[in-house]
Amino acid sequence: MPQAIGKTRWAIAEGYIPSGSTGSGRALESHETVCLLNAGDVDAHVEITIYFADREPAGPFVANVPARRTLHLRFNELKQPEPIPKDTDFASVIESNVPIVVQHTRLDSRQAELSIMTTLAFSA
Amino acid sequence: MPQAIGKTRWAIAEGYIPSGSTGSGRALESHETVCLLNAGDVDAHVEITIYFADREPAGPFVANVPARRTLHLRFNELKQPEPIPKDTDFASVIESNVPIVVQHTRLDSRQAELSIMTTLAFSA
Amino acid sequence: MPQAIGKTRWAIAEGYIPSGSTGSGRALESHETVCLLNAGDVDAHVEITIYFADREPAGPFVANVPARRTLHLRFNELKQPEPIPKDTDFASVIESNVPIVVQHTRLDSRQAELSIMTTLAFSA
Amino acid sequence: MPQAIGKTRWAIAEGYIPSGSTGSGRALESHETVCLLNAGDVDAHVEITIYFADREPAGPFVANVPARRTLHLRFNELKQPEPIPKDTDFASVIESNVPIVVQHTRLDSRQAELSIMTTLAFSA
Repeated sequence: MPQAIGKTRWAIAEGYIPSGSTGSGRALESHETVCLLNAGDVDAHVEITIYFADREPAGPFVANVPARRTLHLRFNELKQPEPIPKDTDFASVIESNVPIVVQHTRLDSRQAELSIMTTLAFSA
Repeated sequence: MPQAIGKTRWAIAEGYIPSGSTGSGRALESHETVCLLNAGDVDAHVEITIYFADREPAGPFVANVPARRTLHLRFNELKQPEPIPKDTDFASVIESNVPIVVQHTRLDSRQAELSIMTTLAFSA
Repeated sequence: MPQAIGKTRWAIAEGYIPSGSTGSGRALESHETVCLLNAGDVDAHVEITIYFADREPAGPFVANVPARRTLHLRFNELKQPEPIPKDTDFASVIESNVPIVVQHTRLDSRQAELSIMTTLAFSA
Repeated sequence: MPQAIGKTRWAIAEGYIPSGSTGSGRALESHETVCLLNAGDVDAHVEITIYFADREPAGPFVANVPARRTLHLRFNELKQPEPIPKDTDFASVIESNVPIVVQHTRLDSRQAELSIMTTLAFSA
């Protein structure tokens, strides 16, 4: 079994939740996802801070990724301490107590045919 | 609140603004974006230099990203010292006085259905 | 001829095999691929561990990448020790005895028009 | 004007030139591109080696990127020492005498609507 892998501080400069979707069901709904991998043997306590263009940051949004688990977290579904507005530019910083790996994915289904994009996040 | 994160020199080797769009409105217009995150407590003064295949570079284009803010800057909308031509290969170097994180995104709506792509920029 | 390039430990936090496809034939079938490059002169023995949201990891899945070869391995086609379920969030850690380079690509053809995404994996 | 930025050894583990295109003209033809940025003051002499799944590597393919220029090179258009076959998995190593930045982009127009993907290459 692999050991822990990753870093404890990550950032994603891109962020945007399209308000529209043409797909049916959760799988094809437009979404913005932060994929978290905790390959180690200690549960990860993760705090996400969201940055905007014209207001102070929101957060921290808290997530737990148990040891040897992955969590694909949709920004759409974050509710506490506040929902993230749609059709709004944002960015995020992800901090964990143990090393994790972070990847950013968007599925955009505003038009009839979905499009997807992904990138590794920046690790500090 | 997270501390400053990132680097002060970044590069994006890809760059191309499609001249056509089929989407309606700014959100669905073809665009090439540089997403800048300044998670720190000092305003970022950013200078962007644009490189071409067959002429000397253009710039610097200047942008300010206030402390604890993100700016998703469309290359399409840069005007000073000169607009960036469409349908033309380019690349960019982004320099900041404080650490920032840079991500590159394109939305291409030349055809009926949009497509999106993104990547973390290269940090020096 | 280039020397070996890369790292021996990699991770991909994103992973999802769409169950549907509208394209015809293997080329256009929805797939999730891990691209492995072994530019060196020693054969690479690669072990992949798959992480899930709600169960213990699966694996190791074993692959061999001969010296000076690339292998574009579809997660869809991994069978031993078990197939990877579709429509399920996962992540992966890739370990090699010699340096390799790892890139992650998805082709999603659930709808009439395919979409593609790719990113460099995280190297430890 | 920025100084040289980048690395001298890069790798792209993904590579595939779709044989089909539905777009009209060079801009919308399916293509696989390696974007090279030479932000420095010395011309870059670049050598690309192509790796396959089942044969010895091809190359070096030679490209020159003048000082303060970018070159978006399509793998489709490489001819010497041999063309790169279509519908075939490959990977590449890019070596330069001076620091450059390398990004990988694909436009896939096999179906009616194009899709695009991009990623920073791996730097050694």
